[in-house]
Amino acid sequence: MSRYFTEQNSEESVNARMAASTDPRLAEVMTCLVKHLHAFAKEIQLTQAEWDYGIDFLTKVGQISSDERQEFILLSDTLGFSMLVDAINNRRPPDATENTVLGPFHVANAPLRQMGENICLDGKGEACLFEGRVIDLHGNPIEGAHVDVWSDNADGFYDVQQPGIQPKWNNRGIFVTGKDGKYCFVGIKPVSYPIPDDGPVGQMLSHLGRHPYRPAHMHYIVTAPGYEKVVTHTFVGDDKYITSDTVFGVKKTLVAPFEKIEGGETDWHSPFDFVLTPISED
Amino acid sequence: MSRYFTEQNSEESVNARMAASTDPRLAEVMTCLVKHLHAFAKEIQLTQAEWDYGIDFLTKVGQISSDERQEFILLSDTLGFSMLVDAINNRRPPDATENTVLGPFHVANAPLRQMGENICLDGKGEACLFEGRVIDLHGNPIEGAHVDVWSDNADGFYDVQQPGIQPKWNNRGIFVTGKDGKYCFVGIKPVSYPIPDDGPVGQMLSHLGRHPYRPAHMHYIVTAPGYEKVVTHTFVGDDKYITSDTVFGVKKTLVAPFEKIEGGETDWHSPFDFVLTPISED
Repeated sequence: MSRYFTEQNSEESVNARMAASTDPRLAEVMTCLVKHLHAFAKEIQLTQAEWDYGIDFLTKVGQISSDERQEFILLSDTLGFSMLVDAINNRRPPDATENTVLGPFHVANAPLRQMGENICLDGKGEACLFEGRVIDLHGNPIEGAHVDVWSDNADGFYDVQQPGIQPKWNNRGIFVTGKDGKYCFVGIKPVSYPIPDDGPVGQMLSHLGRHPYRPAHMHYIVTAPGYEKVVTHTFVGDDKYITSDTVFGVKKTLVAPFEKIEGGETDWHSPFDFVLTPISED
Repeated sequence: MSRYFTEQNSEESVNARMAASTDPRLAEVMTCLVKHLHAFAKEIQLTQAEWDYGIDFLTKVGQISSDERQEFILLSDTLGFSMLVDAINNRRPPDATENTVLGPFHVANAPLRQMGENICLDGKGEACLFEGRVIDLHGNPIEGAHVDVWSDNADGFYDVQQPGIQPKWNNRGIFVTGKDGKYCFVGIKPVSYPIPDDGPVGQMLSHLGRHPYRPAHMHYIVTAPGYEKVVTHTFVGDDKYITSDTVFGVKKTLVAPFEKIEGGETDWHSPFDFVLTPISED
């Protein structure tokens, strides 16, 4: 290899510079990153003007980010990168409940609720009874599972997006299963909403002719001692964005029934079981 | 293909979402970017913790950037990406002067100087006579070429890094060739210096066991009507960092002679000719 960087040896030049003492995993990740970054530029014959645009774009993505907004996560989400990393790290047996993205709106330590309680505190939206069981791969109920749920309100906003407007902990709660593994609560039938699209990622979507919407979904984190944590949603199947989720979060197995109830205590009924896998010992 | 994103179809899922009306070049660039981003995550089996680290790192790179500091350019530079893009866009015949990176310290509209003038205004450093010709590929002199030069001072800082400390336009100037194509000026023998390494890119270099130094160099932009602009440096060959420039800017053909002069008006003499290529008509 030449002592100096050339167009031909670019990848090797850069990767050869790493010290032998570099943490082995870091060395592996950086070597692979440089390989693909350089291959991208070479394959597409990136122009100087496109490089300038890219530098400016990434800078803006960083600069609009704050404690309340994470535009790099939005970028990762809208390029399918977040879902890919989620998929790589959460491969499960066919019958187990699949993961999907956490999203930016989870808040830890939501109030513990009694089974059957209503988590909708602002009185808006169509009431829906969510119920099912937390079970293992053999169908046995799991006692003491925590079902942490959250959704937007009927206007398409999470409580943390509207402090002072929505009641605190609106459409959030944690339910703990008993011996029968059952959970049930009343919430609203969630509605679709756009991710924040007034920044550089929104502009990117617009240039690509893509809408910024997520199909309606209820968020869940289900945990139980001895079992893998499940971070997931259930989706409303007839949502107009069900096949075009802007963050690619929908999986076929996560589309839940939403059944209209006439004359009941709630307008809708959505049954869904969570099937957990034991923590592997590797 | 499944209606929904899967680990297997991730690249196609994302790229299929682009509207048919997307600008063709943008579509090509984004398709290729998504392909390589996803291939990177799959090949390296990126973990969730590594993704978190990456999001945080990129956010910090954006947030430390300002009008005075561009950390994303530093990131691109230190990964060899800037030099690769420069190489792709500035392929030239073997005898022509090669390009290298512009760097962040060029300032437009430096003062026009008389041939032979001294651009070092702070009295520091070892004086060096820089001289040579601006010629075409056949060796013919080019009249009216602008030779825009700049370097750090003897302490390793550009004037714009030390406003109020260094005189304005210290070690900068523009020289215009006459009929003979000759240029000459007095500057200092430049010194090596570190790129700003107190931010996330400096931390990255440290984790990779890499130093942040650039070997000593004089910057040039050479322009003439009808010829391709040359953005380049000449390098001091005996610099300790000559084979480990942290931004990969060194090319063999850009290592210039720096000859020690005993008892002359300057301490050093550095001859170098700039060979320009005609603007292509494609």
